[in-house]
Amino acid sequence: MIYRMKSGNPIDTEAVVNTEDIEQITELEFIDKLGSFGGSYYTDKPDISEGRFALELSYRMNEKTAFFGLGESMRGINKRGYKYISENTDEPRQVEDKYSLYGAHNFLVVKDEEEFGLFIDYPGRVEFDLGFETRDLMTVRIPTKDVYIYLISGKDLAQITKQFRHIIGMSYIPPLWGFGYGQSRFGYKTADDIREVVNKYRSAGIPLDMVYMDIDYMQDYKDFTINRTRFPNFEDFVEEMKEQGVRLIPIMDAAIAHDDRMKIFEEGRNKGYFCTNESSGIFEAGVWPGWTAYPDFLRPEVRTWFGELYRDFTDCGIEGFWNDMNEPALFYTESNYKETLAAFEELASKNSDPTPGELLELAGRINGWNGHDQYAHFFHVVDGKKIRHDRVHNLYGYNMLRATSEGLENQLSGARPLLFGRSSYIGAHRYAGIWTGDNCSWWSHLLLNIRQMPGLNMCGFLFSGADTGGFGAEVTEDLLLRWTAFSIFTPLFRNHSTCDVRKQECYRFGDIKAFREIIALRYRLIPYLYSEFLKAAHNDECYLRALAFDYEDDDDAVETEDQLLLGEGLMLAPVYMQNTEGRHVYLPERMLMIRFNTASEYETAVYEAGHHYIKIGLEQVVIFLRESHILPLASPQVCTADMKHYIEYGHKGELEADDFEIIAFPDPADGPKQYYEYKMWCENADREPVENKIVRE
Amino acid sequence: MIYRMKSGNPIDTEAVVNTEDIEQITELEFIDKLGSFGGSYYTDKPDISEGRFALELSYRMNEKTAFFGLGESMRGINKRGYKYISENTDEPRQVEDKYSLYGAHNFLVVKDEEEFGLFIDYPGRVEFDLGFETRDLMTVRIPTKDVYIYLISGKDLAQITKQFRHIIGMSYIPPLWGFGYGQSRFGYKTADDIREVVNKYRSAGIPLDMVYMDIDYMQDYKDFTINRTRFPNFEDFVEEMKEQGVRLIPIMDAAIAHDDRMKIFEEGRNKGYFCTNESSGIFEAGVWPGWTAYPDFLRPEVRTWFGELYRDFTDCGIEGFWNDMNEPALFYTESNYKETLAAFEELASKNSDPTPGELLELAGRINGWNGHDQYAHFFHVVDGKKIRHDRVHNLYGYNMLRATSEGLENQLSGARPLLFGRSSYIGAHRYAGIWTGDNCSWWSHLLLNIRQMPGLNMCGFLFSGADTGGFGAEVTEDLLLRWTAFSIFTPLFRNHSTCDVRKQECYRFGDIKAFREIIALRYRLIPYLYSEFLKAAHNDECYLRALAFDYEDDDDAVETEDQLLLGEGLMLAPVYMQNTEGRHVYLPERMLMIRFNTASEYETAVYEAGHHYIKIGLEQVVIFLRESHILPLASPQVCTADMKHYIEYGHKGELEADDFEIIAFPDPADGPKQYYEYKMWCENADREPVENKIVRE
Repeated sequence: MIYRMKSGNPIDTEAVVNTEDIEQITELEFIDKLGSFGGSYYTDKPDISEGRFALELSYRMNEKTAFFGLGESMRGINKRGYKYISENTDEPRQVEDKYSLYGAHNFLVVKDEEEFGLFIDYPGRVEFDLGFETRDLMTVRIPTKDVYIYLISGKDLAQITKQFRHIIGMSYIPPLWGFGYGQSRFGYKTADDIREVVNKYRSAGIPLDMVYMDIDYMQDYKDFTINRTRFPNFEDFVEEMKEQGVRLIPIMDAAIAHDDRMKIFEEGRNKGYFCTNESSGIFEAGVWPGWTAYPDFLRPEVRTWFGELYRDFTDCGIEGFWNDMNEPALFYTESNYKETLAAFEELASKNSDPTPGELLELAGRINGWNGHDQYAHFFHVVDGKKIRHDRVHNLYGYNMLRATSEGLENQLSGARPLLFGRSSYIGAHRYAGIWTGDNCSWWSHLLLNIRQMPGLNMCGFLFSGADTGGFGAEVTEDLLLRWTAFSIFTPLFRNHSTCDVRKQECYRFGDIKAFREIIALRYRLIPYLYSEFLKAAHNDECYLRALAFDYEDDDDAVETEDQLLLGEGLMLAPVYMQNTEGRHVYLPERMLMIRFNTASEYETAVYEAGHHYIKIGLEQVVIFLRESHILPLASPQVCTADMKHYIEYGHKGELEADDFEIIAFPDPADGPKQYYEYKMWCENADREPVENKIVRE
Repeated sequence: MIYRMKSGNPIDTEAVVNTEDIEQITELEFIDKLGSFGGSYYTDKPDISEGRFALELSYRMNEKTAFFGLGESMRGINKRGYKYISENTDEPRQVEDKYSLYGAHNFLVVKDEEEFGLFIDYPGRVEFDLGFETRDLMTVRIPTKDVYIYLISGKDLAQITKQFRHIIGMSYIPPLWGFGYGQSRFGYKTADDIREVVNKYRSAGIPLDMVYMDIDYMQDYKDFTINRTRFPNFEDFVEEMKEQGVRLIPIMDAAIAHDDRMKIFEEGRNKGYFCTNESSGIFEAGVWPGWTAYPDFLRPEVRTWFGELYRDFTDCGIEGFWNDMNEPALFYTESNYKETLAAFEELASKNSDPTPGELLELAGRINGWNGHDQYAHFFHVVDGKKIRHDRVHNLYGYNMLRATSEGLENQLSGARPLLFGRSSYIGAHRYAGIWTGDNCSWWSHLLLNIRQMPGLNMCGFLFSGADTGGFGAEVTEDLLLRWTAFSIFTPLFRNHSTCDVRKQECYRFGDIKAFREIIALRYRLIPYLYSEFLKAAHNDECYLRALAFDYEDDDDAVETEDQLLLGEGLMLAPVYMQNTEGRHVYLPERMLMIRFNTASEYETAVYEAGHHYIKIGLEQVVIFLRESHILPLASPQVCTADMKHYIEYGHKGELEADDFEIIAFPDPADGPKQYYEYKMWCENADREPVENKIVRE
């Protein structure tokens, strides 16, 4: 059951789209409902200018209370024991004490004797203190009364989450080829750089479906431009790559360069499409191309305009994009700059040289640019009313994704685009996936990647993944192998790194065979993974989820922070520690361990429920299959182009077990033949789900 | 067997003090010996000015090769798979990709079919690439030929390490009270702040032996001063605290404030005791008090002078110190400042305002202060010769510790001081302990703390520990509980935090009883821990060590990265993940699990060798006792003052089992009575080790 309480005069974030099952309740009724779960609700005189919180929700925990959700955030699967602040942030330092990342996903489920879900639909700053200040006290702090709060009751984590997912609408589904493997780097400067990547992947026999283009392809880092010196015949190049089964996926940033000679800027300015500053001029801030203007994505006409700008690329044959810098990132703003300039002038005009302390202070001021205080100094127009950015901050990336998605919908004649972004809010999952931003080549970030997946799935971001191998810092071969062995299970599967670190393409390392086989296994799994993805999307379920979802009464399962369930049948237990040839695994039930030595050669063993230590070599992939399930494996491919027959089979009739190599549990060697049926989902040409049966006797 | 190869004309670092068992070999003989282990050795034309490495050692690994050692460094117990650079660094961001921390401990053991130890005795920058660039290739790079290299052969990790430890001399031993619990914070500004801490600990019934004083106690952060406004009667205050069983432990920084009115600076300048710059003036750099001069600790007369400066404090009754900022830390140097000033002036004299990009560049320049390039711009005098700092950089903190230790030896009439520092080199362990520097309140740093202990012990730094609860970032109660439950086993046991984070004293949290009982358990363990510490120091063994040391042929033990052996009888398996009520534990042999629910109430269970999942509640401490061992527990204390009778019993005769509560394995309930004997070490008044027997029938 879902209850919605409207407090004050909230703006419609369009996070929720299916309202038929929601019961509207008053503030008093909300207090009553929340109280039945043991929570309290306070209102106070709001004073946002003083940062005083207008609303506070509290909940007293017991020893076993756990929290699941909050989408993209730091720390564990169980969010208890820290503070999370929804305030979308360009955060290149994802360390344990960061409160905010790129997304604001204000949904959580309180797992307790009586469970409930909570969704705070407010696109400004919201604080979730889940036992941070006081270990057994949850406090949610909201700086305004203008908010919708949803309270969701249900029998368990899965059911509460499913109700939530239903009201926020169906998740974005990528095209099948979006499940292919992609190589990326900030630093592919020319078409030849990309050709080299493709050639080396192909000659190493490592499958590859796309190469991502970072801002290097642009002219002076300006959106919707192409550097024609480095990419002389872009249209031909797109075609050339496609002939090799490789799609090019360009990046697009949120802000438009202030360049009076550019038509786009001119048009945006003339039409008043950019966010405004306090004196109603264009709000300008600096990012990659220098001074830029920020499209007011909250307005439908701006979204339409911006979405249409992609046509230059889709006309070239581009079918996928990634959106970046849309928190929005602000390297500096006019007021940052002016304040610093004044401080600089003051120092410069002194009679004496600035002291080291004064220089350090100046640097501190400059280092503090990109501060969140700037959010209160620019404006949007929402439903004809001027709204200060900080009150709708978390909607910015969401609406950029929406603009892009709606533009591509027109331009691609209904074909699904590949699309994901960095910043998001609840609702953005309908338009695109997200990646987890600028992580590092750290083992702890592989673990973070694992732990972020359940929360993201709960909030609808089924199409997600991390920069495999890590974006910043220097990767080592073993880390990249272990990370790749996990990422073959995340829908978004991309190796990405920044410009000043070691080159990170798989073929650069010693054990090319191991990379080839692990990534080939991904391709063998794609029909299964895509089918499970479609089911999760259409059924409002989680493709990847915490063990707590399926084994809620099992304390050991609930506290498992390093294993995931995938779809109907699989459990993952990735290795995320260096120099270990195995790991402890908790099996909540009897399962079949499958150890892939290569993409085609594997061994299996049945493990009873309980705690085990499982050997997992650096070149191996180990997964666990639940009882009475089968795992169908397609034949190996080097890109998804030849794979469609597995997926589009729905058009022609039932799939045959013979189309796949099938691993069944229990293993046939263990006893008499058994009958297994797997419902494989695919889509027909109209994007309708089609259910096939794979039957194995 | 230990071989020493002298290459070129190395300076004597005094790292090695016992030379009788060392066989001197030539470069050719070294090549031959190293080759017998599968290593190679290259020399090239050294060109330090171009950073070209003059010496390179290589070793081709197999799949199972592991590396142990390297003292204080990032990442795992097994150092394979990353790069480590010995270049002592003030590193406040201890993340996975940092190559250098505060100490340079160039000793490692290569664990392979044939094992050997390697000690590079060179106090400048040394790089250890242990499979970073190429997964199966070790490369050690040294920028000079002027170096001693030691090659140690032996039958196993323990024996190779013991030989190394023997030649570098016996480890520093703290006084018994140094095993007490200490509270610290950057931010105890007045005597009353400290009184409040002591009162609150005492009224909470949480044991406490010392309060650490950070730079707040100084006048304007100047060494060897006391702010007399905040600490009006320091002598009386020291006495007042002692009456409560609490010792004050002041900090001392490396550099001396440039203050012409201060006698110390005047004296150092007149005597030429400070490091010099390129024009033979005093090398000045900025740290906490502003511009400072750096005592040339490499000269004996400077050490004597500096050591004597502590007398003002020891005369007040101070018996312990911690040395800081001795990498040395340089917030800025004259040349940093001048270069930046020139850039500033250039910007200021332009006709137009500096652009944001220019300001960012200026800030980048200032952020880059404290750069290691400055090490090549100041000088020491070693044996009468002027030596550029970068060639002896890693000896600086070591010799500050030595100066302090030798000064205190005189001033304390032979009583052991408590002394530890931040920066160090092999050999410093004879004078003092070290703490692991500015960590954070991160769960990953609790794990790092666990993993750093074996390497530190191998290099002789038995007296070590981390800032319990974390120095930077915000701690949570559960992290502090888990960290405390580990730190009760580290010889240095201190809760420390920085000035702008949440206050971190145990009594500020909800479950005071849990803190009280966990810390009380430390006090019950002190006689045992101190005895094991004395044994390790006198026998050149490791107090805390990797499982690989005792179970070298057990692959699972060798790859265990989160458990430690302590002394003769204990194994530790701390919980370091949030929101988990237990953990996986590997038992290399049958052991007795002891679960302390409080300091006095415990339960035991025998676990067979193998992998287990053990429940460990937030308020519990679980340890494992090896077969045929006993664990003697003293009666609870609130400080070590009343504990001496346990330790100094040696003077009077044999200890009685009745003096202790004794836990034996196997538990007496399991079968017929058995006879156990524990050799408890203590010291007599002359610091001679005395061995007692505790016999239990």
